[in-house]
Amino acid sequence: MKKDSIGIVTPHVFSFAEPPATLKLESGRSLGPITLTYETYGRLNEKKSNAILVCHALSGDAHAAGIHKDDKTPGWWDDLIGQGKALDTNLYFVICSNVIGGCKGSTGPSSINPDTGKPYALDFPLITIADMVEAQRHLIDFFGIEKLLCAIGGSLGGMQALHWASAYPERIIASIPIATALKHSPQQIAFNEVIRQSIMADPAWRNGYYYEHGQPENGLAVARMIGHITFMSDQSMEEKFSRKLKNDNLSFQFIDDFEVEGYLRYRGYNFVKRFDANSYLYITKAMDYFDLSGDHFMPETKKTIVRFLVISFKSDWLYPTYQSQDIVRLLKRKHAYTTYFDLTSTYGHDAFLIEIEDETRLIKNFLANISPD
Amino acid sequence: MKKDSIGIVTPHVFSFAEPPATLKLESGRSLGPITLTYETYGRLNEKKSNAILVCHALSGDAHAAGIHKDDKTPGWWDDLIGQGKALDTNLYFVICSNVIGGCKGSTGPSSINPDTGKPYALDFPLITIADMVEAQRHLIDFFGIEKLLCAIGGSLGGMQALHWASAYPERIIASIPIATALKHSPQQIAFNEVIRQSIMADPAWRNGYYYEHGQPENGLAVARMIGHITFMSDQSMEEKFSRKLKNDNLSFQFIDDFEVEGYLRYRGYNFVKRFDANSYLYITKAMDYFDLSGDHFMPETKKTIVRFLVISFKSDWLYPTYQSQDIVRLLKRKHAYTTYFDLTSTYGHDAFLIEIEDETRLIKNFLANISPD
Repeated sequence: MKKDSIGIVTPHVFSFAEPPATLKLESGRSLGPITLTYETYGRLNEKKSNAILVCHALSGDAHAAGIHKDDKTPGWWDDLIGQGKALDTNLYFVICSNVIGGCKGSTGPSSINPDTGKPYALDFPLITIADMVEAQRHLIDFFGIEKLLCAIGGSLGGMQALHWASAYPERIIASIPIATALKHSPQQIAFNEVIRQSIMADPAWRNGYYYEHGQPENGLAVARMIGHITFMSDQSMEEKFSRKLKNDNLSFQFIDDFEVEGYLRYRGYNFVKRFDANSYLYITKAMDYFDLSGDHFMPETKKTIVRFLVISFKSDWLYPTYQSQDIVRLLKRKHAYTTYFDLTSTYGHDAFLIEIEDETRLIKNFLANISPD
Repeated sequence: MKKDSIGIVTPHVFSFAEPPATLKLESGRSLGPITLTYETYGRLNEKKSNAILVCHALSGDAHAAGIHKDDKTPGWWDDLIGQGKALDTNLYFVICSNVIGGCKGSTGPSSINPDTGKPYALDFPLITIADMVEAQRHLIDFFGIEKLLCAIGGSLGGMQALHWASAYPERIIASIPIATALKHSPQQIAFNEVIRQSIMADPAWRNGYYYEHGQPENGLAVARMIGHITFMSDQSMEEKFSRKLKNDNLSFQFIDDFEVEGYLRYRGYNFVKRFDANSYLYITKAMDYFDLSGDHFMPETKKTIVRFLVISFKSDWLYPTYQSQDIVRLLKRKHAYTTYFDLTSTYGHDAFLIEIEDETRLIKNFLANISPD
């Protein structure tokens, strides 16, 4: 455990949408009951005005900071959340919940369908970013929080942060979307589609009903390998691997000769142990459907008082800088107070998890201006 | 048939390396007999000084120009080869041969292994760009051509054009490597590795011995989809597809909602009909092994009189501009006469097949200065 870790944290569970009061989804279908697994760090003040919602990325979960009693792996944004850190737990009450559709404790395709007693599998309805946010809104209500101080996240998390501002401008003071977009470009959809095809092409996927038999390992591993290439940059791969060989010489066989090949295989097959293939399908589809461009963003609001900090990274080619600039342009049209930074980094899309120093400086300053009462 | 087409062409076959005089490969293994399928356009002059070797890309073949009697599909560089075109068949004798390791008439993993009477499959030895060029050299010898006027190609074809200059500087006057690199970066290796993993993860691949049963369709289709994303640019995908839907509304199902998804699936599964999965493995591995950087290029030549025209495309992120600039830097160190252009195009890596007008102007001028006697 790092010296500045917030220490041992415990995930909690919140359930809602018990039938017949199920959650109406954007697709028109209903879902319920719904469980959200979440963690909190810091303390909710008396006025309940210091809550920050952290939204996780595609393969993330509710474990954003600290360590679990039985697992010393720090949360995925541990360097950003804690005493004196960007999301300072001396000042703020930080909440992070696993998205619906996921597989880390919140209701998703691998959860038990109460109608059948078996995992939903493909009977799980398609969910959208709006549905994920709607579920989070129930959690915020449960805490009795009228207004979030801020919603923040990178990538898929940034989409949620944007959707919060768009759907509930009266319930959020600030939004920090990082390395994200108002909508996926065809290239982003294409990568996600190939990821889905890779999973669905594996016979072990069994049309989604594989839970009794185990994961479609090969399809999911290849899918994740594709993802990993898009998370890194040409330069960060060059710095990490260059053309370094695993052994002294080329093998002249179909085995991994280069370190980068071994790395990808390792990351791909490791992912199979920790992430449900169907959740990968559902969440990538939700990202592809997401579209807050033009009039979709705050459709009935000509002006907004929500304040924004938008951050992108120069080497991020999966969510390129121009997409964050599109966000900023749209926000300016809504007369929103918007601060934008395009940070220098060689880490590609992964930068939002790595460039902690720059993010800390920006987020700290930004939050200082909207501090709770 | 286009008006300016060279008309009906016929593929030819050339065989060599009959055992025991087999071809010694870079891996140390031997291969033979070897068949090359090739096409020629224009006429070899008396001095045999007007021959241009066209080298094809990963999924290309010997059919570079004109049409076949029974198939009206024009050759893959039809707009560049013909009377009055960049490779002017009034002036030049143009040769294009399918690479060894391929599946379009030259010896590759799907060819019959004379030792077993069955397709080689994975018993086929790994081949390299050097081996491909060595096979072409036998074809050039067969024509009695002492010195090629030029070797030209894009992508994998550009690697061959570079290797010709490096391995046989005395047998080539000029080289035109387009949209290529001295060596694959880890990102390029990574994409190829995921492509290979996708094929090899398909149980229908059967460890490579699938020929009695048919292709590993799903794995190969997904592999090709990955390739297609890397051939296009973010911008060209935006122009072609944007977020256009196939139907009026989102389906909220796992089917292709967006046109780009349908396009990728179509291209992926169409590829299965025309290209052998093992050839995809062998050729991508040859590309990953290729390394003419530093002292690998013309190792014993301090100076070279081979002349170069190097072309890259600004939107090509698979073979980015900086890799062509690396080629130019190396050539300058060898005191080579080198002309370099970084062409403006939105087509990404595919640009070398599409930006005919610019290529024609550059190639025509370049060749005019090294015209045959």
